[in-house]
Amino acid sequence: MITLDITTRQREDMIDITALIRQTIRNTGIDRGIAYLHVPHTTSAITINENADPDVVHDLLLGLRRLAQRDAGYRHAEGNSDAHIKSSLLGVDQTLLIDGGEPVLGTWQGIYFCEFDGPRRRKLHIRILAA
Amino acid sequence: MITLDITTRQREDMIDITALIRQTIRNTGIDRGIAYLHVPHTTSAITINENADPDVVHDLLLGLRRLAQRDAGYRHAEGNSDAHIKSSLLGVDQTLLIDGGEPVLGTWQGIYFCEFDGPRRRKLHIRILAA
Amino acid sequence: MITLDITTRQREDMIDITALIRQTIRNTGIDRGIAYLHVPHTTSAITINENADPDVVHDLLLGLRRLAQRDAGYRHAEGNSDAHIKSSLLGVDQTLLIDGGEPVLGTWQGIYFCEFDGPRRRKLHIRILAA
Repeated sequence: MITLDITTRQREDMIDITALIRQTIRNTGIDRGIAYLHVPHTTSAITINENADPDVVHDLLLGLRRLAQRDAGYRHAEGNSDAHIKSSLLGVDQTLLIDGGEPVLGTWQGIYFCEFDGPRRRKLHIRILAA
Repeated sequence: MITLDITTRQREDMIDITALIRQTIRNTGIDRGIAYLHVPHTTSAITINENADPDVVHDLLLGLRRLAQRDAGYRHAEGNSDAHIKSSLLGVDQTLLIDGGEPVLGTWQGIYFCEFDGPRRRKLHIRILAA
Repeated sequence: MITLDITTRQREDMIDITALIRQTIRNTGIDRGIAYLHVPHTTSAITINENADPDVVHDLLLGLRRLAQRDAGYRHAEGNSDAHIKSSLLGVDQTLLIDGGEPVLGTWQGIYFCEFDGPRRRKLHIRILAA
């Protein structure tokens, strides 16, 4: 298992980790297999979405903010229940197919580490298995 | 890795691909294992839900439309930010257990390819590993 | 494949199954690998979120109720379309890394079986593969 460090820059953030994951997969020398990603936090998540137009990231964070507003009559005293909800909506795990030593991604797909209660220093675990 | 072609019929659509996935798994002759599905697009997704009453599909698409409305002050110039949001909410990957040469599904479960910005010709990647 | 029985206590419920999953993994004696969890129902789901403060579970269920209200003009005659929507939002599968014979989880992470149309007797399938 490989653990990567991710530093997020603001309360709500999406960090494009495609190149980082690609390099991590290449370093293993595995040609065909599966990569399992796990975010060990409860106020962040992982998702795959468009990496061409940065406005898509803006709109994703905006759309999620509308789904779980920050101060909306929650009980949890830390005041970050919106971040916990977003984490469960997007999920903390992601599976990637590996083919030709590369993660299989569509033309417009990038892998994003999603921060909902930052900025913080975060971890991301990866296990890569050969097929 | 196997790549299937999926043709969607309208802007928002859920195509029941259970029989297609079942046949694809059978063709490999693998009795026990795991199937990994990956949608290589950023405005579609994959989900598992009820395949008995077509009203459930209607209500799922309706419920998602309420969560991410089409014209809601987004920045992305293509005008399909709602579709990007829905794609991340449902996710582009799905893992299936295989037992007795069949995907393990509950009585009412079907596998759906979800289109949010169609109609289009789409791809679905599958890798099947023996346990 | 191992199948566990889960009994839910109310219509909307989150059952902390972390200890149950941990024990199931330990029983296999597998040191390093992957656990695949699958919920074979269409009105329940699985998620990972905070297991320290029970208010987080309360707020998650509250947040989801706001996203899919119970009587909101759905077609499906069973009256549980809200539960189907929540099931697809959180998803019915979960992948866990196993290291040192234990599921890899962050300090505050617990695994939850999510009920949206209970109380009911439910099933959870698990397959555990060595790396």
